[in-house]
Amino acid sequence: MSKHGAYLWGVLENFKDLEVTLTETPQPKPKDDELIFGHNFTDHMLSIEWSEQRGWDKPCIHPVRELLIHPAAKVLHIAIELFEGMKGYRCVDGKIRLFRAMENMKRMRRTAERASLPDFDGGELLRLIKKLITIDRDWVPRSEKCSLYIRPPTLHRGDIPLTLQISRPCFFMSSAAKLFVLLSPVGPYFHTGFKPVTLLADPRFVRAWPGSCGSFKMGANYAPTIQVQDHAMREMDCQQVLWLFGDDHKLTEVGTMNLFMYWINEQGGQRRAGYTTTAWIDSTWNYTQISSGTFSAVGEGNVWAGTACVVCPIEKILYQGQILEIPTMTKAKLTNRFFNHLTDIQYGRIPHSWMEGVDDDTEVVA
Amino acid sequence: MSKHGAYLWGVLENFKDLEVTLTETPQPKPKDDELIFGHNFTDHMLSIEWSEQRGWDKPCIHPVRELLIHPAAKVLHIAIELFEGMKGYRCVDGKIRLFRAMENMKRMRRTAERASLPDFDGGELLRLIKKLITIDRDWVPRSEKCSLYIRPPTLHRGDIPLTLQISRPCFFMSSAAKLFVLLSPVGPYFHTGFKPVTLLADPRFVRAWPGSCGSFKMGANYAPTIQVQDHAMREMDCQQVLWLFGDDHKLTEVGTMNLFMYWINEQGGQRRAGYTTTAWIDSTWNYTQISSGTFSAVGEGNVWAGTACVVCPIEKILYQGQILEIPTMTKAKLTNRFFNHLTDIQYGRIPHSWMEGVDDDTEVVA
Repeated sequence: MSKHGAYLWGVLENFKDLEVTLTETPQPKPKDDELIFGHNFTDHMLSIEWSEQRGWDKPCIHPVRELLIHPAAKVLHIAIELFEGMKGYRCVDGKIRLFRAMENMKRMRRTAERASLPDFDGGELLRLIKKLITIDRDWVPRSEKCSLYIRPPTLHRGDIPLTLQISRPCFFMSSAAKLFVLLSPVGPYFHTGFKPVTLLADPRFVRAWPGSCGSFKMGANYAPTIQVQDHAMREMDCQQVLWLFGDDHKLTEVGTMNLFMYWINEQGGQRRAGYTTTAWIDSTWNYTQISSGTFSAVGEGNVWAGTACVVCPIEKILYQGQILEIPTMTKAKLTNRFFNHLTDIQYGRIPHSWMEGVDDDTEVVA
Repeated sequence: MSKHGAYLWGVLENFKDLEVTLTETPQPKPKDDELIFGHNFTDHMLSIEWSEQRGWDKPCIHPVRELLIHPAAKVLHIAIELFEGMKGYRCVDGKIRLFRAMENMKRMRRTAERASLPDFDGGELLRLIKKLITIDRDWVPRSEKCSLYIRPPTLHRGDIPLTLQISRPCFFMSSAAKLFVLLSPVGPYFHTGFKPVTLLADPRFVRAWPGSCGSFKMGANYAPTIQVQDHAMREMDCQQVLWLFGDDHKLTEVGTMNLFMYWINEQGGQRRAGYTTTAWIDSTWNYTQISSGTFSAVGEGNVWAGTACVVCPIEKILYQGQILEIPTMTKAKLTNRFFNHLTDIQYGRIPHSWMEGVDDDTEVVA
């Protein structure tokens, strides 16, 4: 598969060219306990334009504003777009750190290639994101229930032909693109402790397929799931969709999140955790990765999901007209253990190499 | 599955409220023989805003201009967008007519439901499109090799949360949307007669699957195909992708177009045509619809594809390292027969119920 290698950023040159325009009308900052996920944005955003002729233009930090997009831009017609979801935390020592940020940069670059969007230097983009956070650092919540959600998308733009054309190969890649980064202070998903969820597991709905782009963070993976999620909530009284795959109804993901399972296996009592996509479970947890589970295992133990919302326990699964009860809250203490361990790392109560400082003088905490 | 029934347009009220702002700087019109598919736009576009609170706002025809879109709009992150591709023709009697326009309206409404975008009255939107074409009628090419391509997308917009959230069902539908229509005068795909193409048929790449949204015209179906098309052209020397599905490598589509086959079947000489998605082949052609073909049939006869580019003959298929030669150009005269019959209808040389007049006084030609 082809790459856009010619358009790689220089590692430091780009950062050096950064232009910063600060807002003249700073917005009032919401209180930590009033934050709703994804509703608030900080004062500034990062924008970088790319064109086939000139490569990446100089990056700009400027007040958050609406984008001007030509109505024929491919992002509005054929969904040439990708995004990432990252998180930053104000740690107990007062410093702001990012959680596994380079992993997001790596996936973003992998996705850019799959989406025929321009490649970039991940370390360079991360430096620019850190600079943006430093400028808006007073927006990073102080509560240990809150964090800063970081959303960098790339998308196609420009006055590009509406359709693909047989004789013009250059049209198959985006000839103009924009990368931008928004910051959003966010509260906890669950204000009143863990609220266990019920999942709809219906094999009629399939989220990803071999040979498509399920392992990339392209916008195209999300749009088809909205109606199914809506159906689960409005008509089936479930909070999320457990996506199945194949004739044997393999478990894949919950909503847009990873799924973790804990159960007693057939070989006599050994406990295992399984996960299905790249996950943050450490080898220190001593669990074995499995590629997928099926319903033969689900009923025997506990199941839960965790992501940007940290951890969410699952107590019921609606599958082929039956409610499967999962004793996540009564039998297992793993939800709490999981949550506490992860947030200890994120808020800096336990120093960890996954956390990377935002300030220039804050190096990785080992 | 849920519907947005509450937001249906009134059949005529909306049209009555139309606001028209004509351009003060009309653009020079390109010559018919200089038109490239999807490069040129007429002077005006149609825009209609929708919000959950107010439903559809009054439609506006105004000069083509860039759209202002909030950087958090779902269309830029999770690809909540759809489109249609329609065609209008200046017929031999001088009148402008649309080709099977209500079929596009029907599919657009079906797609809107699948994409969780607001529903609308198809007849009403068609009236508005006709009004737009009437205003820009001098842009409709006069050559019988050219036509007017009509592109109406709907997309999510607005300052909407970045992510889906468990506790807020209203976020799963778009709370603000925009529908707009662009007109693009287009030339023929092939300036110098039919140019037969070679297809890449590689079962590693899958465009659609059961339980997803392959039968809807969502932007999300297109983005994942770009890299594969690029691979076919740059690395495999093929012009288009023949998408396969399943362990038996069923033939589904070519690029984003329908595929038609003609061959001698096993039961002794009877000729058949097959098509795989909703196609315009009429029962008057006396062909039998088949749901899909496989490679056991391909080598025995002729294969070609037809769509917005009218008809495109296929002469070779690269499949598992072998080139399959299809004698489309030498044995069968069907490509020409197909092309002539279809363009006779489109340019009004044969009156047909599929064609619908753009002018208010031009009724359907039966």
